[in-house]
Amino acid sequence: MSRRQEAKARDGNEIEFSRIVAFSDGVFAIAITLLVLNLTIDTDIPRDELGQAIWDQRENFLAYAISFAVIGRFWLVHHRYFSEIKAFDGRLIGLNLVYLAFIVLIPFSSQVLGEYGGTTTAVVVYAVNLAAVVVIGGLMVADARRGGLTTIDAQTHRENGIRSAYIAAVFLASIPIAFLAPTLASLMWLVLFFDPASRLARSAVN
Amino acid sequence: MSRRQEAKARDGNEIEFSRIVAFSDGVFAIAITLLVLNLTIDTDIPRDELGQAIWDQRENFLAYAISFAVIGRFWLVHHRYFSEIKAFDGRLIGLNLVYLAFIVLIPFSSQVLGEYGGTTTAVVVYAVNLAAVVVIGGLMVADARRGGLTTIDAQTHRENGIRSAYIAAVFLASIPIAFLAPTLASLMWLVLFFDPASRLARSAVN
Amino acid sequence: MSRRQEAKARDGNEIEFSRIVAFSDGVFAIAITLLVLNLTIDTDIPRDELGQAIWDQRENFLAYAISFAVIGRFWLVHHRYFSEIKAFDGRLIGLNLVYLAFIVLIPFSSQVLGEYGGTTTAVVVYAVNLAAVVVIGGLMVADARRGGLTTIDAQTHRENGIRSAYIAAVFLASIPIAFLAPTLASLMWLVLFFDPASRLARSAVN
Amino acid sequence: MSRRQEAKARDGNEIEFSRIVAFSDGVFAIAITLLVLNLTIDTDIPRDELGQAIWDQRENFLAYAISFAVIGRFWLVHHRYFSEIKAFDGRLIGLNLVYLAFIVLIPFSSQVLGEYGGTTTAVVVYAVNLAAVVVIGGLMVADARRGGLTTIDAQTHRENGIRSAYIAAVFLASIPIAFLAPTLASLMWLVLFFDPASRLARSAVN
Repeated sequence: MSRRQEAKARDGNEIEFSRIVAFSDGVFAIAITLLVLNLTIDTDIPRDELGQAIWDQRENFLAYAISFAVIGRFWLVHHRYFSEIKAFDGRLIGLNLVYLAFIVLIPFSSQVLGEYGGTTTAVVVYAVNLAAVVVIGGLMVADARRGGLTTIDAQTHRENGIRSAYIAAVFLASIPIAFLAPTLASLMWLVLFFDPASRLARSAVN
Repeated sequence: MSRRQEAKARDGNEIEFSRIVAFSDGVFAIAITLLVLNLTIDTDIPRDELGQAIWDQRENFLAYAISFAVIGRFWLVHHRYFSEIKAFDGRLIGLNLVYLAFIVLIPFSSQVLGEYGGTTTAVVVYAVNLAAVVVIGGLMVADARRGGLTTIDAQTHRENGIRSAYIAAVFLASIPIAFLAPTLASLMWLVLFFDPASRLARSAVN
Repeated sequence: MSRRQEAKARDGNEIEFSRIVAFSDGVFAIAITLLVLNLTIDTDIPRDELGQAIWDQRENFLAYAISFAVIGRFWLVHHRYFSEIKAFDGRLIGLNLVYLAFIVLIPFSSQVLGEYGGTTTAVVVYAVNLAAVVVIGGLMVADARRGGLTTIDAQTHRENGIRSAYIAAVFLASIPIAFLAPTLASLMWLVLFFDPASRLARSAVN
Repeated sequence: MSRRQEAKARDGNEIEFSRIVAFSDGVFAIAITLLVLNLTIDTDIPRDELGQAIWDQRENFLAYAISFAVIGRFWLVHHRYFSEIKAFDGRLIGLNLVYLAFIVLIPFSSQVLGEYGGTTTAVVVYAVNLAAVVVIGGLMVADARRGGLTTIDAQTHRENGIRSAYIAAVFLASIPIAFLAPTLASLMWLVLFFDPASRLARSAVN
């Protein structure tokens, strides 16, 4: 019996499928919101030095902005990916959990980046975390496609491909830059707030 | 091809659309609940001084109440706004993420306000945070309307307009007051717990 | 125009209504889960004293169990209450937010109770928090019923009444006991894990 | 009147039933995401010792991976279990809350395990927590089946049985190992990331 035959079809298991999607969305929403916990203020700052103390956290605010963009972008990719799933089995669910485990690590990596933004170690920790997300996401997609669990929609497929490649390219390009100018590398990541897929798809159509 | 034509209609993409809404709701719910983490109690207070220690946190309780009202009010505005959306695209989703990034900052700004309530810095941090939410929300609405992504319902439109203007007015009015009497400015924000739109709409009808 | 006429009917606004319910559920779920953050372990305990250090937290575990039961029970009450709502307006949503603001306070009150379980102050903080929830919940129900926003189902009405009275009675009875034996009062609250309504309703039917 | 007759059928109470499931899913999603809070970095580490400081947290990362796998696996079990429920009553909801109370404890037990991984105390705390989840889950299932609240689907029943037994076996086997080599015991738990039920079910069919 092939994997596809024994997998559960989405159509007949809409409630179960939507629980998986809702669980993933919940994890994304919580992880993205926990980022704010990396921003704290000591309770014993002299009142006239508060402005300076907040300004001293500018690296943490930058890490917050980057990580919010990154998790938001991954959520969109995940979102688009699951919209093309038409059946699921234990392996897909397991891979999805491993994927989420690396998403949930981002607030930690982001804390390291915020506190030690100028160091090679912090950039490597962050880049490894995000690379793991991209690689496991790629494995999950490839595995599901090989197992026949996805629909074949050239447009969606192409948009997802553009998005994944875009994210991977941004992170790969940032690593060498990070060794020279870590803050610039961090600023580069902010472009992840913008979604190239619809724009590229549009120009491809026209 | 116009933006409206290439945007996804809500009707044919109800699941995808509801994931965006559910994600936003999740972020709001988590951000509002994380406010409680700004209230903590040291573990080494002499037992007969506990009452005093809790009383000393009255500024933190006030900040909690204000921020709960503020996030709750923004959630309602977001809620009403998305109920009039009929199509969505990458730009709307991106703007929504930026919007949420400033919502999630509120627990931090609220912590600053709670700890340093009497300082101009704390009030400016808080007011800037909330002003960013209102401005980005306004941009998001204006952009979606220009792109033809919203339905035209004069009543809802009018109620949303009243709500946004009401919130903006409360914050704008509070800034000069905050330079003179920060606590009074904070108390002003509590009026956000009450929703003027239905009342004003009602009197307009009658 | 009466309040009922201008309120939105649930039937024609199922998505909007379910967002309110989902938001409330999210807040309950986050608040109940944040309780675990009141349980922490220092990182510098000698390894052979770890058992003792955990045992020393027994008051915190008790507070955790009580508050989990309390929030779970309030969630059920809220759940039952909203299942009888047939229309909603701004006032109901506003009261619901105030209600949730006191639910979200429970992890703080629970921390105070866990750290200072034997003090009158801690018990009063906790009891005031819970009393506020019960009172505001009662106001919300009464207001909605007066406005004609609820369905009239004698069985549900009766079960909700039994549940609210049961919770109120448990807390009221615990306050005098808390002045004599705080731990016993805390143990009393554990009975909230059990739901008397179905049992009482059953015996009333038979 | 039998329990089954007075329980609410899922079919006629889909919204109420789905609120229970969504609440449980929310709690699982939050608990699994809070695990990241056990990973923190001091803010005063010399910049060239950051790599060492992160490496020193390897036990915490291991505890994170294990607990993510454990909560994810329990979520799946819970997920499968509730997919066979066809009616629910107060007792099922109450048992589900007790079950969730032990799920929410896992981030605490995981923190103890991460900080004190080599100690018998930490392993016992963790194993007791997980054993409580398995035992209460078993009680909940048995009670619901006895009350006639579940559907009879031999395949699902068998898969759930395999999953529960598999989890129980992994933890039971790890306890004696933990007294000799705690890290090995922890590594054993990682096998919970993989789901044997579909594989075993498949070989049973063929």
